[in-house]
Amino acid sequence: MTEIQNRFRADPEQMGDLMKVALGQMEADMAVINGDIVNVYTGEILAGNTVLVKGDRIAYVGKNGAKSVGSSTEVIDAAGKTVIPGLIDGHTHIDNPYTPEELVRYAMKGGVTTVFTEVDEIAFTLGYRGIIQFLKAVENQPIKIFITVPPMVTISRAAEEQAITVKELSKLLKRKGVIGLGEPYWSQVITGNRRVLDLIAETINSGKTVEGHSAGARDNKLQAYFALGISSCHEPITAEEARERLRLGLFIPIREGEIRRDLEAISKLKDENIDMGKLVLSTDGIGPEQLVADGYLEFVVQKAIDLGFDPVTAIKMVTLHPAQRFGLDNIIGGIAPGKLADIVIIPEVSTIRPECVISNGKLIFRDGAFLVEPEKYAYPAWTEKSVRLTRDVTDKDFTVPVDKARHRAGVRVMDLVTPLVTREAVIDFPVNNGELSIDVSNDLLKIAAIERTHIPGKTFTCFVRGFRLKSGAIATTSVWDLTDIIVIGASEADMALAVNRVRQLKGGTVVCSGNRVLAEMALPIGGVVSREPMEILARQLADIQQAAAGLGFPHPDLRTTMSVMATSAIPFLRICEDGLYSIDQDCLVDLIVD
Amino acid sequence: MTEIQNRFRADPEQMGDLMKVALGQMEADMAVINGDIVNVYTGEILAGNTVLVKGDRIAYVGKNGAKSVGSSTEVIDAAGKTVIPGLIDGHTHIDNPYTPEELVRYAMKGGVTTVFTEVDEIAFTLGYRGIIQFLKAVENQPIKIFITVPPMVTISRAAEEQAITVKELSKLLKRKGVIGLGEPYWSQVITGNRRVLDLIAETINSGKTVEGHSAGARDNKLQAYFALGISSCHEPITAEEARERLRLGLFIPIREGEIRRDLEAISKLKDENIDMGKLVLSTDGIGPEQLVADGYLEFVVQKAIDLGFDPVTAIKMVTLHPAQRFGLDNIIGGIAPGKLADIVIIPEVSTIRPECVISNGKLIFRDGAFLVEPEKYAYPAWTEKSVRLTRDVTDKDFTVPVDKARHRAGVRVMDLVTPLVTREAVIDFPVNNGELSIDVSNDLLKIAAIERTHIPGKTFTCFVRGFRLKSGAIATTSVWDLTDIIVIGASEADMALAVNRVRQLKGGTVVCSGNRVLAEMALPIGGVVSREPMEILARQLADIQQAAAGLGFPHPDLRTTMSVMATSAIPFLRICEDGLYSIDQDCLVDLIVD
Repeated sequence: MTEIQNRFRADPEQMGDLMKVALGQMEADMAVINGDIVNVYTGEILAGNTVLVKGDRIAYVGKNGAKSVGSSTEVIDAAGKTVIPGLIDGHTHIDNPYTPEELVRYAMKGGVTTVFTEVDEIAFTLGYRGIIQFLKAVENQPIKIFITVPPMVTISRAAEEQAITVKELSKLLKRKGVIGLGEPYWSQVITGNRRVLDLIAETINSGKTVEGHSAGARDNKLQAYFALGISSCHEPITAEEARERLRLGLFIPIREGEIRRDLEAISKLKDENIDMGKLVLSTDGIGPEQLVADGYLEFVVQKAIDLGFDPVTAIKMVTLHPAQRFGLDNIIGGIAPGKLADIVIIPEVSTIRPECVISNGKLIFRDGAFLVEPEKYAYPAWTEKSVRLTRDVTDKDFTVPVDKARHRAGVRVMDLVTPLVTREAVIDFPVNNGELSIDVSNDLLKIAAIERTHIPGKTFTCFVRGFRLKSGAIATTSVWDLTDIIVIGASEADMALAVNRVRQLKGGTVVCSGNRVLAEMALPIGGVVSREPMEILARQLADIQQAAAGLGFPHPDLRTTMSVMATSAIPFLRICEDGLYSIDQDCLVDLIVD
Repeated sequence: MTEIQNRFRADPEQMGDLMKVALGQMEADMAVINGDIVNVYTGEILAGNTVLVKGDRIAYVGKNGAKSVGSSTEVIDAAGKTVIPGLIDGHTHIDNPYTPEELVRYAMKGGVTTVFTEVDEIAFTLGYRGIIQFLKAVENQPIKIFITVPPMVTISRAAEEQAITVKELSKLLKRKGVIGLGEPYWSQVITGNRRVLDLIAETINSGKTVEGHSAGARDNKLQAYFALGISSCHEPITAEEARERLRLGLFIPIREGEIRRDLEAISKLKDENIDMGKLVLSTDGIGPEQLVADGYLEFVVQKAIDLGFDPVTAIKMVTLHPAQRFGLDNIIGGIAPGKLADIVIIPEVSTIRPECVISNGKLIFRDGAFLVEPEKYAYPAWTEKSVRLTRDVTDKDFTVPVDKARHRAGVRVMDLVTPLVTREAVIDFPVNNGELSIDVSNDLLKIAAIERTHIPGKTFTCFVRGFRLKSGAIATTSVWDLTDIIVIGASEADMALAVNRVRQLKGGTVVCSGNRVLAEMALPIGGVVSREPMEILARQLADIQQAAAGLGFPHPDLRTTMSVMATSAIPFLRICEDGLYSIDQDCLVDLIVD
């Protein structure tokens, strides 16, 4: 069991009070009466029970609680309703593009009382101090937010130099709110990155957990990665991939969020005779538009039920199982004496529509109304200084020079074959005056990576296929795993305009064309977080998506597609300020092949 | 996940090697090939697989391991056999009457590679230093033995004064091999024993677990106890009691050992639609005779299968589930990459007869032969000094005086109504010259508790019914939860002889009659541990049992019946050097009622 957070330490005085309430010798602070309670431990639904709460804990669950219900007890009648534990998002990324308090609002009304999140983007752009800022922003929220420390696996030398050290990790693992190490991408781990092996060992030896990321790996490579002691993977996209990972003893947070929606495919497991005790429902990041349109994790549970999962099993997958995954099932994940009072009342077991949400023993949401407000955290001014370019860029900054003697060149091109995956294509380019040029008719656009923080202005430019812009450019600082601005364009002038506007915004995403900004979103905190409310963000993202689509972008989610251009999380060919990077070979590769 | 023991820390060098073996780039140290492997995570049996081992860990499990099998690889062919994880005893007491190395021998041949044991008797008689001795005796054994620190709940004031402190517990919890706090008996906890509440809080706040003991408790009292954060209970004796505890989220180590055999009764749970993920098979202490006759935990698994448990479920109950119970499922409990190589080969899944046992990557037992020996630990001389009586006792020491003016007295008598439970009976005694006397014809024998260590010689004598001795006496230092000699007799002279012989032996059990010793067993280490081999102990215990039966003792296990006379673990009326103790009322009660 993981060392629990200071905020939830066992306290002998409180323990004594809990005993007295259970024994009928002291009044409970709150009583949820007459409810049909989902017991996640046995899988039963126990009708007409009372839950007694004292302070932030549950003291008693059963039919003999009346003696402890008195004049000081807040009574909530759940007659005819179903009572379930607070939901838990077992793997997500809520460090961008919104502030945590904006997510907390959606969590509260969705019945989500605990979130386990990685903070990778904040860590890359604001470093160790940025992680501390995030911890401060979440520590006093009405719900519990735990972080995993990002191992910061990157293809960028500059980012690698700034990456988290074992010493920093060790300090973080001692802090309340830190539950383990985030996901080290497998392809860069199994080649033996010693810094990352050291981070993994440090985490395991401190008694905490390591999140996995093994997208596409199988058999020997998969097992090499998990032999390190990594204990979860949210990357399977088929039932078969999930089964192979379950056999390794891993927890599988099934992903249904912004990056991908894998629940339907993996739900086929329910028809196999296989233990589902390590299946978890999670979002792996959830965007403003999804939150505003569908809600948060409650939508995912509902979908699991609608796909045919037994409702109690679906509920276990967002309560008991994620609690067990982090060794916190001693305090969260079930309705039982001694656990934190995280309780959600829903109309009936198959309808995940929270009517009443209790978190840490406090009623926080009831009948559509918030009863407490998320804490608004004041980020210090230094967090707005991730974009450190000292001058505006010009179209000349995106020249791709080659040997002047050449008439042609075989050029490695990033070929976007799905909304996320880039294959390597080798394309024969003509050479004009020692330069390679954009070819809009063949969808060969320029893509540049401009380091913005550590060695500001260092730029690498090459080509990408699959964005299909007929004109204009898109630039963003919202990029995984380094501190670059990524810009893609059908015109160097628009690329320069987009980057310069991003610089003015102190970070953000800009779509422009014909020397005019079509849509934009400011992300001043670390270049990845907005100060706007969720609903404004959803509208800005919709505008950006619409503007990009107007230029020709064919995929549904520009934000995510742009964000993965420099990551080693997803194969195969990626860009950073150092050049083109082959994820398979785990090294930089030449732009010109022949 | 619990902070793992130093011996099994994650080491980046080893992690790198495990990856290489999994990837086919380095030879494995051992390969178990062609086996049908029980996958405890999914519940599947996967045929014809190879397990690759490097050092003490598993590197790979599957069909593509051949590349790592080379000339330096020890190959074990498991063709036609079933391969299961090493068995784990999830709750036991192996600190007496044998030395741990004697138990280790039976564990090795039974395929038991991990034992979680409490060390209560050693702790009471030898204190904190005794616990350290036990840790030293087990730390280098071929199998893993983890201890829980006994909270030392006692009815004796002298023992309470010597009981473990929070400071001592805190030091112990930092030691390798210490996994949590042992079982605090519920009846003395829910009345608010602050020392014990502090021990529980200290353990939970260090991230470790607390074992439960809630024999007979239900509903409000049961929940009051478990509201403290205690997370297991091995005390249910019916399926209904087990179900009530499962609903509280507890692990249930089903007990099948020396104290009781509850497996058959609780096995009824398997026919209910209830999650069995927290059921564990355990012994809760196992005696020499049972070990010699039936074996160790392998017998219990076999019995579960014979009772109708699905074999894979039965195996999970002694592998994955107990590993999860202690948050050690990251290193033990399953056959998967990164786990310790604890592997047992059996003929087929329903026949738990270990043919080959691998522990920490080493072959320790094969085809009936031990391949390594348990470590023999040399206990220091001071451990033999728990019996500190300064003189021999005489028959006069067992006088029970009352007011000389009385002709009769209503006397509280310990009434042994089962082999373990003592009810309170009030019996009308005649008073002769200010004394109460033994009445063999009505089975009213004397019982005395003589403190032997902290205030040596302090004695309390009263009466017991149910032992049915027609003559003679039985004395023993093998008593739970304090440092008394308990002596029961039909004759004060024989009681004195038995106690004096126990004193000569430096501790032990003695049966005598007519001024002659009939059978005995020396337990010099702390008055609870013998230096003899298991087989000798089994014979001595059989002799003692036979001698006691010859005197009239009606129950099958004298050793256990004698050991519980002073415990608050089992209701209702108990004895110590301070007097008679009511477990229900949690206080001393008067001998004379009216």
